[in-house]
Amino acid sequence: MLTAPYTIVGAGPVGTLMALMLADRGHRVRLFERRADPRTARPERGRSINLALAARGVLALKQAGLMSRVAPQMITMPGRMLHDEQGALQFLRYGQHAREAIYAISRERLNCLLIDAAAERPHIELVFQTRCVDMDPDAATLQLRDERHGSVRHEPFGILLAADGAGSAVRSALLARRLSSAREQPLEHDYKELSIPAVTGGAAGGDFVFEPHALHIWPRGGYMLIALPNTDRSFTATLFLPRQGDPGFDRLEAAGAVQDFFRHQFPDACAAIPDLAQQFALHPQGRLGTLYCERWQAAGRVLLLGDAAHAIVPFHGQGLNCGFEDCRALDGLLASRRDASVALAEFERERRPDTDAIAAMALENYLEMRDTVRSPLFAQRKALAAELERHFPGRFIPRYSMVMFHPEIPYAEARRRGAQQAQILDALTAQFGFASPDAPALRQAQRLLDDAGL
Amino acid sequence: MLTAPYTIVGAGPVGTLMALMLADRGHRVRLFERRADPRTARPERGRSINLALAARGVLALKQAGLMSRVAPQMITMPGRMLHDEQGALQFLRYGQHAREAIYAISRERLNCLLIDAAAERPHIELVFQTRCVDMDPDAATLQLRDERHGSVRHEPFGILLAADGAGSAVRSALLARRLSSAREQPLEHDYKELSIPAVTGGAAGGDFVFEPHALHIWPRGGYMLIALPNTDRSFTATLFLPRQGDPGFDRLEAAGAVQDFFRHQFPDACAAIPDLAQQFALHPQGRLGTLYCERWQAAGRVLLLGDAAHAIVPFHGQGLNCGFEDCRALDGLLASRRDASVALAEFERERRPDTDAIAAMALENYLEMRDTVRSPLFAQRKALAAELERHFPGRFIPRYSMVMFHPEIPYAEARRRGAQQAQILDALTAQFGFASPDAPALRQAQRLLDDAGL
Repeated sequence: MLTAPYTIVGAGPVGTLMALMLADRGHRVRLFERRADPRTARPERGRSINLALAARGVLALKQAGLMSRVAPQMITMPGRMLHDEQGALQFLRYGQHAREAIYAISRERLNCLLIDAAAERPHIELVFQTRCVDMDPDAATLQLRDERHGSVRHEPFGILLAADGAGSAVRSALLARRLSSAREQPLEHDYKELSIPAVTGGAAGGDFVFEPHALHIWPRGGYMLIALPNTDRSFTATLFLPRQGDPGFDRLEAAGAVQDFFRHQFPDACAAIPDLAQQFALHPQGRLGTLYCERWQAAGRVLLLGDAAHAIVPFHGQGLNCGFEDCRALDGLLASRRDASVALAEFERERRPDTDAIAAMALENYLEMRDTVRSPLFAQRKALAAELERHFPGRFIPRYSMVMFHPEIPYAEARRRGAQQAQILDALTAQFGFASPDAPALRQAQRLLDDAGL
Repeated sequence: MLTAPYTIVGAGPVGTLMALMLADRGHRVRLFERRADPRTARPERGRSINLALAARGVLALKQAGLMSRVAPQMITMPGRMLHDEQGALQFLRYGQHAREAIYAISRERLNCLLIDAAAERPHIELVFQTRCVDMDPDAATLQLRDERHGSVRHEPFGILLAADGAGSAVRSALLARRLSSAREQPLEHDYKELSIPAVTGGAAGGDFVFEPHALHIWPRGGYMLIALPNTDRSFTATLFLPRQGDPGFDRLEAAGAVQDFFRHQFPDACAAIPDLAQQFALHPQGRLGTLYCERWQAAGRVLLLGDAAHAIVPFHGQGLNCGFEDCRALDGLLASRRDASVALAEFERERRPDTDAIAAMALENYLEMRDTVRSPLFAQRKALAAELERHFPGRFIPRYSMVMFHPEIPYAEARRRGAQQAQILDALTAQFGFASPDAPALRQAQRLLDDAGL
């Protein structure tokens, strides 16, 4: 049974997964993508922060029956590996249970797998190298430009879903028509991707230079380097650093400055990137920020999805997971509502508290990753939270775990419960912990050591 | 300046290190060894639990100027990696600081490095394939048999140091003459060594199948498997299991029994040992025990050293470290005493409380490794101990750390302070911990969760 067709702008992971979910329900879908088919084109270098899939993303992929394709490309990361200035390592598990892990995956690879799956469906029409330049919600037409010849044409649509990312052209069209408004909150920090090759050795293609089953972090307070493993035994590292300041990207322009900075701050990573200066010069310096968009839907037939609606900073590793969860949420609403325009309006109403919550938590998590994670108090607090989770299963789940491992808990609820839990951790730490110098437990320990003559 | 020569029986690591220390002080040393020169002979298969060097052993090697040779052969192990029945992993650090690690090293390799160093010294004479069959302390003669021809001869000695291991022939000679007495306390558990090969792949010789920088433990309550990394990217695993019982070595004799047992209990290790059944059949089943020997010295000229005097079970990884510490202790006494016979008597008097203490702690540690380590309470107690160490540096050092990382603290003191610390940990846990269901902290957490409506 074929119903009125859907049009999707953007064949990134979110747009393509949405197309697959719609096709699964018998809808015809047309998917327009500005770029060439990534399965045949060469990837743009240094232009995608690599991905950490977590339970929300996995659940959406499972629902679409795609996990058997995706799983072989995933590398399990059950915790963080911290690197200090001397290269000493500390591993901190994310959760108590083996299943509480996140998964590194190449954004490019994941995208190609999804496009492969879409190309197999007769209901999905993939149109590459076709850029959306404008969209009229009232006339229900898209203005498209063929990127090869420059020719422009108008295309009518029934329902338009815009998954065209943080720089969404569809959103621009809504803003130009005053059908929505948006505020971008830029981060003062930029990012730069760097590739850490496998150590050379033999036909097997060499070896991981760091532990593959970990998300590596070099937390340095005001900035950080991270690295995620790739299946070819390389790592993709990302430096997050203020645009200006000391240290800052603007101070790294002199000859030798990058090498000096890395050698002092990240000596083990520096040793693992032989062509550091060249990579640094070649790869673009990326910007980060949070996008707050007032209205996601217009005229009962246009909806922004994923980053187009609510781009966030990458520090909770939830951008794509949240986008995939958008797909699940919209798919559920479209399936249960007779009128698609009702589903679009409900999606916006129901989903916004959750995307606001993850936007805030992603910003909060930058401080945790680059700074707090280094403190002994952080490890103590995590241990206490794990203790409470063990004793009160279901009632106390650490916020990080709710976000990453519990897709049944909406982001907004995770944030709300997380705030309550933080108060409980504060109270218990004050009464029973060893955090402050005048903690009762510490005073008692002092007495006992004195009594024992130690 | 050459003084009266020393004779050493046993060119294992302890005997050879002792020879090097004596040569450093200008003494001539003759070293008799039952086996052929290990640098040219093929090693006996499956006959040595591989070694974990810790600070006491390292300090002795440093004092003898040998660390530059030994260090390249060491693999740093900063903690334990626990494997559960499903193959899920948990890493527990040994200490807070990067330097608080132990080091895997091949016993054979270490022995060869020491013998190489000894062979370079003109003051040391190495005599291989020569077995001590008797020793007369009053006549000051050794009875030696050439292992190639079977010929027997008598050799006079000045000072005789016996480093001929747990089955010491020199000790037997003392016992036969009623100059000492000894009690062996056998362990009810035997051991079996198994090799875990590197995963195949390329000219580099493959890859470690588990994390190389960890001492791997499969704790199963009544028994355990452990594995230490080798520089060739294999692991040497050791199964510790009751001789009789269910499970026990006697139940593993039927066809397929070993494979079944490993598949259920150690699935990840099982998958990593393709020739498990063959190895199990070929490798000898080793015995373990503690040796308490009443007198270590006789006639002012004979002294038992290392395992010959005080063989212990391997569960604290201190057998060789303790033997190397014997060398340091004896070297110090010989250097400061005019009369060697006084030094031998003092060595026995001063050293025995420490060797008794490490013998007891090694037995206690078997229970920790095979069982206690699995409990969440264990992790809590370790975290609390780490907390106290951070707040009271020097005053509270966890017992494991005192034994492994603090050679300035004698074993006996480590055991004494450890017992006091255990009482302090008990008291603090009861008052501030979450260990028991009616712990005050847990009741308070319950109240706070109730109040928050969580």
